[in-house]
Amino acid sequence: MHLFQRDDLKDSTTSLFADEIQVRFQDVDAAGVAYFARVFDYLHAAYEGLLESVGEPLPAVLAERRWAAPLRHAELDYFLPLRFGDRLTVHVALAHVEPTEITFGYRLEDAEGRVAAVGQTVHTFVDPKTWQRCELPSALRRVLSG
Amino acid sequence: MHLFQRDDLKDSTTSLFADEIQVRFQDVDAAGVAYFARVFDYLHAAYEGLLESVGEPLPAVLAERRWAAPLRHAELDYFLPLRFGDRLTVHVALAHVEPTEITFGYRLEDAEGRVAAVGQTVHTFVDPKTWQRCELPSALRRVLSG
Amino acid sequence: MHLFQRDDLKDSTTSLFADEIQVRFQDVDAAGVAYFARVFDYLHAAYEGLLESVGEPLPAVLAERRWAAPLRHAELDYFLPLRFGDRLTVHVALAHVEPTEITFGYRLEDAEGRVAAVGQTVHTFVDPKTWQRCELPSALRRVLSG
Amino acid sequence: MHLFQRDDLKDSTTSLFADEIQVRFQDVDAAGVAYFARVFDYLHAAYEGLLESVGEPLPAVLAERRWAAPLRHAELDYFLPLRFGDRLTVHVALAHVEPTEITFGYRLEDAEGRVAAVGQTVHTFVDPKTWQRCELPSALRRVLSG
Repeated sequence: MHLFQRDDLKDSTTSLFADEIQVRFQDVDAAGVAYFARVFDYLHAAYEGLLESVGEPLPAVLAERRWAAPLRHAELDYFLPLRFGDRLTVHVALAHVEPTEITFGYRLEDAEGRVAAVGQTVHTFVDPKTWQRCELPSALRRVLSG
Repeated sequence: MHLFQRDDLKDSTTSLFADEIQVRFQDVDAAGVAYFARVFDYLHAAYEGLLESVGEPLPAVLAERRWAAPLRHAELDYFLPLRFGDRLTVHVALAHVEPTEITFGYRLEDAEGRVAAVGQTVHTFVDPKTWQRCELPSALRRVLSG
Repeated sequence: MHLFQRDDLKDSTTSLFADEIQVRFQDVDAAGVAYFARVFDYLHAAYEGLLESVGEPLPAVLAERRWAAPLRHAELDYFLPLRFGDRLTVHVALAHVEPTEITFGYRLEDAEGRVAAVGQTVHTFVDPKTWQRCELPSALRRVLSG
Repeated sequence: MHLFQRDDLKDSTTSLFADEIQVRFQDVDAAGVAYFARVFDYLHAAYEGLLESVGEPLPAVLAERRWAAPLRHAELDYFLPLRFGDRLTVHVALAHVEPTEITFGYRLEDAEGRVAAVGQTVHTFVDPKTWQRCELPSALRRVLSG
């Protein structure tokens, strides 16, 4: 489950995809910093960007019922408080491909290049009609297995 | 479109349905008060409560494709800043029923009974399959027309 | 309150600022279209973009307590259902400046240039310390009054 | 970091606090199930309920600057897709108290008592003024150490 270690993600020199995000006005909570659950949105945006970059944009995937990949695990380690307006680079740093699932590792860096957070998501591939586990599409496997 | 006037909503003695909500930790924005768009969530929760109270719970309505009623208009007037933890009563204060649409009026009161906001939503009934405008279900019309 | 008419907003040839947004994966509701309250987020993003373009970026404004402008009114008319992945241009189409408040009008266009929604927001200027109504900053007035 | 094992959380007979939630209309994503990041909201609501039950309601804690406990870790394992209207019981199943941090374990059960998800959050106590790590309040320690 916790395939990648915190230090793998902090120190990875790989970047499969990088997304630029900015902490939004409404992402902040009553304690004045980015609400912890909202930071998972940033991971998902980078995941969607990666999918688009490999020719599998999620809107088309869902509309055409090509495949579905619900999450079975998600986690984040937070190192720096994030504030409204902060600009972050979200790197999809690592991916581990298995027959029916993919694990992605993420590293969020602030404008000074400091690691603000690391995280991972595990996606299980299911048939969009039956919701039964299935193999991931070969096109996707090919690209992500490098 | 703006069927109800602000004073109708502030002074209405009717309450078709009343919902109790509390401003959540993550509803607050970077200015420290409830994010304006989140207050529309409170209206929708009261609308769903009303539907359930008249025997048309929205989860079942959508699952069974009984009917669909997308919004064609929504508005709010804000009178008091709302803060994390504030308890509000959301009254569905008025409803105006037409052949193919319903307008609901809302009044939000704080714990001291002061009017914190008033709003309205206009829902157009459409066939869930074709998305074409249709008459609202007779059961719903009967209950809401009083 | 409803300063701009729907047709003013639909037909305005002005665009004070234009923002490009895309309906996000999580912006959709259980009826399969963009959740009505989420569309207000798109207005606010364009408002923030406009502020930044006139040298008043909201993160700095709030951090330095330059001014605050809570909303006292917000409204939207929805013309087209919006789906995951839809790309929209959000025009801040009109602004009306008064001594202590500003009304902005918005027009959302889809990728084919069709008007998907029009809206407006009314912001009241208050002293960030006392939350009492005050005049809007002269720099802002100068730029927005054209 | 991953103090509790998945099976600890699935099988725990403890429940420090139980919260009832319902998957909201807008919690669903474009794939038709509860958006993974929104499920963390359910954990936080249960955490807030627990705090209130031990005499430390979060709105008062923040308003009075008693203490602050930002998250340094959050994770969830998802076992069942959650749909609009689903009713869940969120148990705060376990807590592990250290000098300057607390780990909470959560178990989400659906209406049939099946485990829908398990999760954990790790909160670091900091001085609300300096944001420096500090010991957790003795009142809180006393109650949670049971």
